[in-house]
Amino acid sequence: MIIDCHGHYTTAPTALQVFRDLQIAYAADPKNNRPPAVPDIPDEAIRPGIDGAQLKQQRERGTDVTLFSPRALGMGHHIGDFEVSSVWARFCNDLIHRVCTLYPGSFVGVAQLPQVSGVSPKTLIPELERCVKELGFVGLNLNPDPSGGYWKELPLTDRWWYPLYEKMVELDVPAMVHVSASCNPCFHTTGVHYINGNTTAFMQFLAGDLFKDFPTLKFVIPHGGGAAPYHWGRYRGLAQNLNRPPLSEHLLKNVFFDTCVYHLPGIELLTKVIPVDNILFASEMVGAVKGIDPETGHNFDDTKRYLDQITTLSQDDQDKIFFKNALRVYPRLGPQLAAMRDK
Amino acid sequence: MIIDCHGHYTTAPTALQVFRDLQIAYAADPKNNRPPAVPDIPDEAIRPGIDGAQLKQQRERGTDVTLFSPRALGMGHHIGDFEVSSVWARFCNDLIHRVCTLYPGSFVGVAQLPQVSGVSPKTLIPELERCVKELGFVGLNLNPDPSGGYWKELPLTDRWWYPLYEKMVELDVPAMVHVSASCNPCFHTTGVHYINGNTTAFMQFLAGDLFKDFPTLKFVIPHGGGAAPYHWGRYRGLAQNLNRPPLSEHLLKNVFFDTCVYHLPGIELLTKVIPVDNILFASEMVGAVKGIDPETGHNFDDTKRYLDQITTLSQDDQDKIFFKNALRVYPRLGPQLAAMRDK
Repeated sequence: MIIDCHGHYTTAPTALQVFRDLQIAYAADPKNNRPPAVPDIPDEAIRPGIDGAQLKQQRERGTDVTLFSPRALGMGHHIGDFEVSSVWARFCNDLIHRVCTLYPGSFVGVAQLPQVSGVSPKTLIPELERCVKELGFVGLNLNPDPSGGYWKELPLTDRWWYPLYEKMVELDVPAMVHVSASCNPCFHTTGVHYINGNTTAFMQFLAGDLFKDFPTLKFVIPHGGGAAPYHWGRYRGLAQNLNRPPLSEHLLKNVFFDTCVYHLPGIELLTKVIPVDNILFASEMVGAVKGIDPETGHNFDDTKRYLDQITTLSQDDQDKIFFKNALRVYPRLGPQLAAMRDK
Repeated sequence: MIIDCHGHYTTAPTALQVFRDLQIAYAADPKNNRPPAVPDIPDEAIRPGIDGAQLKQQRERGTDVTLFSPRALGMGHHIGDFEVSSVWARFCNDLIHRVCTLYPGSFVGVAQLPQVSGVSPKTLIPELERCVKELGFVGLNLNPDPSGGYWKELPLTDRWWYPLYEKMVELDVPAMVHVSASCNPCFHTTGVHYINGNTTAFMQFLAGDLFKDFPTLKFVIPHGGGAAPYHWGRYRGLAQNLNRPPLSEHLLKNVFFDTCVYHLPGIELLTKVIPVDNILFASEMVGAVKGIDPETGHNFDDTKRYLDQITTLSQDDQDKIFFKNALRVYPRLGPQLAAMRDK
């Protein structure tokens, strides 16, 4: 079995963006605009974007299941207030649930939360509970910078976030640390804001003591952990300088990395430096980097190909990366897949 | 010969920080404080921090020359106005010049600029000219985020920066892209702000067309290029998505990476992915990551050791990384070393 732990719904029906554009206009000028009504979207509008893109590529590449969440770039937590963000998150999550229901076993949901910069994470709990308990989602995306590139939030290790973490522990769902669009002209969204967001989260976890308070809390840092594995010596050294325990004790029971690194040398480094128990297969397709690498003749984001070329991995190591770690890190995933199969 | 292109004066005399503390108090409350007088610092106060630390380690590790600039963390461009930043940069640069004069041939100066967020880069030209023409400096450090972690500046590719670039081209001096301290609680300074600053600059260069306007302008991206080499496939793919030429044409005639990556697998990746002509030896000692790596028994920042273990590099490749590239990228360095030797 191959589980891709990182896929976003980038080929959603046009009606989703039409609604969002109206909602953005409303958020910008609530006096002169009405909150738009959430449209009904028929199954027939959903199928082409899945059959012809996401599912097609899963099949071509041999992926069985994708942990599927709303488009990261589209979360736009910097737009509007909590009400706007709530309606939007709910609509996006419902659409993910529709895909999971239409294609049982091929997609399992991961939630977008109605984050707004400066608004307490307590407010995120109802939508998280709804997604997990009612929609069968197995994880969530957590944006460490809902300001959209201005980094106004407290670090992820601050007690401010604790109410959400308490609920995550109770529900046994991990969070993928994932920013949304950058509106800061310094930061290209997929080229640098995503990567910086990951590096930032890793260093926050390193400098803090969050996992003393939450020994079972789990985070997946996508895009191969940002810069962290490449600078692993720097981070081991900084942990030592900051009187933290070795990283294996300090955070590797709680922090995991995905394989969204789009060339073989990067995947080689990742698998060499990071313990195999901490690596989860992912491709983020259909996603951030499209197109064929002229150096290989294959898609940049066909990360399975790179992993297949790593000869130092045993069969058990490969199984861990391709599905065993995902089933362990997302404890609800196995039961959810079984329930879907039984339907 | 071995040239370390990235060393900061982290062991300066106490008088420097005493002055700076008074200056920070003045900047915070100019009505109730006077601008402090720049103190005289005798040679005897300078020698111990060099003889017992920087020069001692250079000799132990076999480095002949360090391109030496004021402490990056201390630049503090977010503190005070242009007058404060000018007095501080001038004092720091003069002290670098003192070290270079006391230890001719072992240190060559690289300038701190009196940057202030929102103030035109035109204002940086007089101090840059003074450092190059009067003090014999061969390069400069350019902070893409003088706001100290809030990223309020325009991208480095914006025309706003062009007056400085025109002067850099005229003087034939490259800039190392280096942020200073972060006052944003999200960003640990050496753990993440430095690395993110480098990744950000790289993506700005990738997304822009700066080197069409300045074909001879050169930048060194330190700390191994931030996350860029690890995600080289992502960046090649994004260049393709953004209709940019291949990176070799688009920016590799102008953008170089140092070797401040503190473990062997990182250096292996760097030398595998980045053309050897674009890699400059550096250690940033005595610097950001102190101490002995328990896995190797050697200093984390002893980057020469990692390079010595890369068996795929020919003698000429090694020479390029250890000194030939530095002499090419910093055209004033060779003549400056010759002039120092003749004195």
